[in-house]
Amino acid sequence: MSAAGEPVDFYFEFSSPYGYIASRLADDLEQRIGRPLRWRPILLGPIFKLTGQAPLTQLPMKGPYAQKDFSRTARMHKLPYRHPDKFPIGTVGACRAFYWMHDRDPAAARKLAKALYRAYFVDNRNIGDAEAVLRIAAETGLDPTALGSAIEDPALKARVKGEVDAAIAAGVFGSPFFIADGEPFWGVDRIPMLEDWVRRGGW
Amino acid sequence: MSAAGEPVDFYFEFSSPYGYIASRLADDLEQRIGRPLRWRPILLGPIFKLTGQAPLTQLPMKGPYAQKDFSRTARMHKLPYRHPDKFPIGTVGACRAFYWMHDRDPAAARKLAKALYRAYFVDNRNIGDAEAVLRIAAETGLDPTALGSAIEDPALKARVKGEVDAAIAAGVFGSPFFIADGEPFWGVDRIPMLEDWVRRGGW
Repeated sequence: MSAAGEPVDFYFEFSSPYGYIASRLADDLEQRIGRPLRWRPILLGPIFKLTGQAPLTQLPMKGPYAQKDFSRTARMHKLPYRHPDKFPIGTVGACRAFYWMHDRDPAAARKLAKALYRAYFVDNRNIGDAEAVLRIAAETGLDPTALGSAIEDPALKARVKGEVDAAIAAGVFGSPFFIADGEPFWGVDRIPMLEDWVRRGGW
Repeated sequence: MSAAGEPVDFYFEFSSPYGYIASRLADDLEQRIGRPLRWRPILLGPIFKLTGQAPLTQLPMKGPYAQKDFSRTARMHKLPYRHPDKFPIGTVGACRAFYWMHDRDPAAARKLAKALYRAYFVDNRNIGDAEAVLRIAAETGLDPTALGSAIEDPALKARVKGEVDAAIAAGVFGSPFFIADGEPFWGVDRIPMLEDWVRRGGW
């Protein structure tokens, strides 16, 4: 079943702590499985509307658990984590910036995604603010001018909406979410299972 | 932090597929960590009312994923699994039987829990039916007569309610759910993290 060389889809929401943690594990995972990850940021807002879910931290009982678990899971992986003061946030600007860059230079888009995640989950910067996204793009060595004028472009908005719709059609309902050869894996704690699945070609 | 010999609480709902899988991994886990597990069946119904959750299989998108994941996770652990025709079910009778037995003979109660789980998730028997619970108790070599007359006893009902209330007070919102030295771990996929936590005394 496992198609060597075929990309594995890696869906994530920029406001998701577990998505951030997965992004920090992604390069090593890619090496270990010998298959490229296709980074695909999504927006959980419209997905949660469909599924009737709410952000984890807003749920009774699950909220305090999640809050503790974000930093505990980060520490387990020896990753920096500082829970952002403003949480969760809307990340449509971050998403648009990613796909705009992706259509020009996928490696630069991945670099931007990492910088955005670090800004939010390490440096406590509010990446829900489009200006902050542009500043972070500039700090990453990208030219923010063209991006700045593209960010409200209807074509780019439609591009992001299309990505979210495609994710929903593929069954993505959380972050991180991986799909390998049609098989879905939800959650950073499922990376070992994904890895095993890809290696063995399922079971 | 890790208190050698102190029990680790293992909460589970008899209607929970991941609880069933955890129950099949529990004895090995106990051996590996060198600490006893305290089996504590609970009822997710009242807990879901508090947290606004619904049974996994009834949720859009998450439902089909969960359905696939139950048997996939069981296969990964080389465990038999047959999704029950009637699912989910009310398990208050099973819970009462467990605690009634537990207060007389904890080892027999654990044996009964395993038999109930097997009946439901392997043999497709509806353990939501109190008569089925008594039959399974009898098949397990337990005397069902005294249990049968105790199952509607107000004291036993209060005993089960007290367990569920205590679980809620401890922050338990899912199945399986482990608490080791005050640290909570939710989900069968968190067993490796729990194990690591107990070994290292946290991190």
